[in-house]
Amino acid sequence: MLPFARVTVIGLGLIGSSVTRAVRARMPTVRLTGYDADPSVRDTARAIELCDDVTDTAGASVIDADLVVLCVPVGAMGAVAAELAADLPADAIVTDVGSCKASVVEALQAALPGTTIVPAHPVAGTEQSGPEAGFATLFNHRWCILTPPEGTDPVAIERVASFWRNLGAEIETMAPEHHDRVLAVTSHLPHLIAYTIVGTASDLEEVTRSEVIKYSAGGFRDFTRIAASDPTMWRDVFLSNREAVLDMLQRFSEDLSALQRAIRWGKGDELFELFERTRAVRRSIVEEGQDDAAPDFGRSHE
Amino acid sequence: MLPFARVTVIGLGLIGSSVTRAVRARMPTVRLTGYDADPSVRDTARAIELCDDVTDTAGASVIDADLVVLCVPVGAMGAVAAELAADLPADAIVTDVGSCKASVVEALQAALPGTTIVPAHPVAGTEQSGPEAGFATLFNHRWCILTPPEGTDPVAIERVASFWRNLGAEIETMAPEHHDRVLAVTSHLPHLIAYTIVGTASDLEEVTRSEVIKYSAGGFRDFTRIAASDPTMWRDVFLSNREAVLDMLQRFSEDLSALQRAIRWGKGDELFELFERTRAVRRSIVEEGQDDAAPDFGRSHE
Repeated sequence: MLPFARVTVIGLGLIGSSVTRAVRARMPTVRLTGYDADPSVRDTARAIELCDDVTDTAGASVIDADLVVLCVPVGAMGAVAAELAADLPADAIVTDVGSCKASVVEALQAALPGTTIVPAHPVAGTEQSGPEAGFATLFNHRWCILTPPEGTDPVAIERVASFWRNLGAEIETMAPEHHDRVLAVTSHLPHLIAYTIVGTASDLEEVTRSEVIKYSAGGFRDFTRIAASDPTMWRDVFLSNREAVLDMLQRFSEDLSALQRAIRWGKGDELFELFERTRAVRRSIVEEGQDDAAPDFGRSHE
Repeated sequence: MLPFARVTVIGLGLIGSSVTRAVRARMPTVRLTGYDADPSVRDTARAIELCDDVTDTAGASVIDADLVVLCVPVGAMGAVAAELAADLPADAIVTDVGSCKASVVEALQAALPGTTIVPAHPVAGTEQSGPEAGFATLFNHRWCILTPPEGTDPVAIERVASFWRNLGAEIETMAPEHHDRVLAVTSHLPHLIAYTIVGTASDLEEVTRSEVIKYSAGGFRDFTRIAASDPTMWRDVFLSNREAVLDMLQRFSEDLSALQRAIRWGKGDELFELFERTRAVRRSIVEEGQDDAAPDFGRSHE
């Protein structure tokens, strides 16, 4: 039994277009409707046939939906929900893929009073953007975190969980505020740090940009991948999850100052002790199947 | 014509054992001698036949060498050079693979007065360590930076350049001090940041370690690879290249404070402007062949 028969995806970038591709691959009888605020994305979506139908307004896309998946930057969730509210069937369920949850839950509840909302965050992605960057296996073996507001109908939660499981994901449920703190450390802070260091390296006087690129295999290039992620999406994440991001950043800065001091005063033992601990974290991630065991991310050395 | 006929590799970890494997693959008639201060590494090196001969002292390994390649942590370069000095043939050339050059040049010149020294840094590696982690193609299409002291015999420089070219590397030459500033930004600072953030994430109270690992695909896992690099090697790098690392760290901290302030005050335009610039750096790195174009480092999503 399919959890939903008519699914609408709003926002057809990397994640939205991966959702439509995964639905096509895993639930081929579902009727898929899509919408994107950018007319050129709608044109591309039609040309590559991401959906059965691509509409020119958000409202038209949801008229007969039983599930609406919002795949827009978190700062745009409230506005797009308000835009489609009048056309949303009373029994439709709304879910989303936003990387922060407390602010999104609040925005969706305000825009869609009375609608059943089951917020979701599939922890998956690449550094690429746009309707052509998506692929059907993006959510395979990745976690999808549901953060349903208190009092949400358990049947609706289970239908949304079943939808994501059908796309290949594994489900976890937690409170929105806890989600935002966990993701602040496993995703938002890493992106912020990567954006910063790539910016720092671009702004040097005595080391040229061409040298930075040429010798990036020493470690820097790893950071550039994350720092190539979608600018609008990430601007919104940092503004929407501000408190948790600033708190994690404060802890990081304190730890960095401690290391800086250890280097300045030649305290090799302190450095060594930390570097041994961090090595063990990598081992756990590989052991638990959250990254490949191949050295250097399996990059080719031929 | 081979640049050297009898090559000794001191230190048989990831890099040293990759040098011996690459010599075997590319210059099979070279006679290879190896030494490592750790008896268990010597045993492994003998068992897996990394060299024609593995000696039990540094001195014995260099007796008839015409090239000695020092592949030990940069903090150990001076001591190992002093240990083999008495047995080094007068016409032997000494090179190394250290990640900082000014301190290494100084240590080697002090320990080996009168010896021809052509310091080198192949910008290549993985997060793994030990004699079994090496592979013959590690230096393929990677840059190897030579930092010969002023007045070094140009013929000796060319022979060492030719040696590294034979192992697959491309050669660049620069002053040791400039090398140390370039690598501080493309390699040392990224490692320091990665070690810090992995440490920060391990020390939280309200987010468990198992949650950090479980949701690491949001970006964090990329940092754990670099933070799994050899603790001794990296302790030595930070202590040996202290001034350049502290300077780059200061710039990074200033930039991070600016971003922190932008987030606190909701200045989305500042964030967006930076995130667009950093995206362009990634494009350049991929265009210049310093990283794979495949999204997500080509990780499997099946």
